[in-house]
Amino acid sequence: MSLNPIIILVAPQLGENIGASARAMKNFGLTKLRIVSPRDGWPNPKADSMSVGAIDIIQNAQIYDTLLEAIADIECLYATTAQPRDMNKNYLLTQDLGRKYPQNQKVAIMFGRENCGLTNEEIAHANMILSIKTKPDFSSLNIAHAVALVAYECYKTVALPEENSKLDNEQIVCTRGELEYFFDHLFNELEANKFFKVPEKYPHMTQNIRNIFTRIDKLSQNELQTLRGIISSLSKKT
Amino acid sequence: MSLNPIIILVAPQLGENIGASARAMKNFGLTKLRIVSPRDGWPNPKADSMSVGAIDIIQNAQIYDTLLEAIADIECLYATTAQPRDMNKNYLLTQDLGRKYPQNQKVAIMFGRENCGLTNEEIAHANMILSIKTKPDFSSLNIAHAVALVAYECYKTVALPEENSKLDNEQIVCTRGELEYFFDHLFNELEANKFFKVPEKYPHMTQNIRNIFTRIDKLSQNELQTLRGIISSLSKKT
Repeated sequence: MSLNPIIILVAPQLGENIGASARAMKNFGLTKLRIVSPRDGWPNPKADSMSVGAIDIIQNAQIYDTLLEAIADIECLYATTAQPRDMNKNYLLTQDLGRKYPQNQKVAIMFGRENCGLTNEEIAHANMILSIKTKPDFSSLNIAHAVALVAYECYKTVALPEENSKLDNEQIVCTRGELEYFFDHLFNELEANKFFKVPEKYPHMTQNIRNIFTRIDKLSQNELQTLRGIISSLSKKT
Repeated sequence: MSLNPIIILVAPQLGENIGASARAMKNFGLTKLRIVSPRDGWPNPKADSMSVGAIDIIQNAQIYDTLLEAIADIECLYATTAQPRDMNKNYLLTQDLGRKYPQNQKVAIMFGRENCGLTNEEIAHANMILSIKTKPDFSSLNIAHAVALVAYECYKTVALPEENSKLDNEQIVCTRGELEYFFDHLFNELEANKFFKVPEKYPHMTQNIRNIFTRIDKLSQNELQTLRGIISSLSKKT
């Protein structure tokens, strides 16, 4: 059985890179491509021609205006970065991806734009960082190369379905969209309670809070409901 | 010690692919490039621009008219192919390259032209075939992707042991005792807000809540402080 995570390209700039990414995906058996806000619009003839025989992946690609829409149904989201960032987020090295792949979840792996990768805000949505180890002094990978390396690792893996599945409990893992709804609830209540005293720090503080809750492995719908119940209960004014 | 085989591109057609190959080499610490009979001559401005910061590799590339000249001083030559060919030659998979790398020899790895790879005659010069496992029905890799995968495997071999530990962030992980203090705070506030409506369910409900927060891997002291701040803020009665 081979791994088939959804590949999400976040705001890619060049059609050539989208096409080359699709080709690399197909070389290693990945089929599902999502693209968030491609700079040059869609469809893109350069993506078509660079995909060579992977035109089916290009034609079936799903296009989104925002990252939140693209990840709404995802249960386990990885953010790729070349170098570890100074964020409080767990890291997984690409070579360990196959061994630690969450078998029974809807998995997506996102890749950033050519010139500057993923923003910290985008990374904060992820459960985990997927890190490709490069030379520290030359860490900027071509995006299609990064997709190729991840796809290669997925294909190389001989998955161990029966071993992995035992770890899963029977609860339904919440999606990124459901988690986002929870964050909306939490941040609204915190604002109402003047938790964010300095407005400029709002992005940083909410990002830190996201990084805490996105680290909860396999957070279930029931558990998310409990967390929402806690917020409602605590913020009740009597 | 790092692996630094010579990369030989045999009759590459597009300057873009030469540049992208150089960039991928540099990402993973390979420095030595040889090019046999590049179709569009040399130097090639497209190779320069696609190399991005790896221009040094392009500028130091050695150019040869024939493969025989390019491999004359090589002690161990690998020929890359996507699919095993019907040749009487030993195969090595890319994932085993690091483990079986001939340490004390001058090693080169050659890659074929974009449209048809290496000829059987060229492969015959190699000591061994280095095979990148792909989907059998879509095995044609972009040449720079192939270089990237091989370079990645070379780097992976050497970079990991000592560097792995650096991936951990520098924050102090909270102790179980500190976490318990957080739970006391949370459960007290929840009780004050009548969250536990049915007393008999108290043990079960608190256990569920514990199970959520104890799953946060490497929860730091700072983050625990944030969580306590959230509880204090939400439960503030105004």
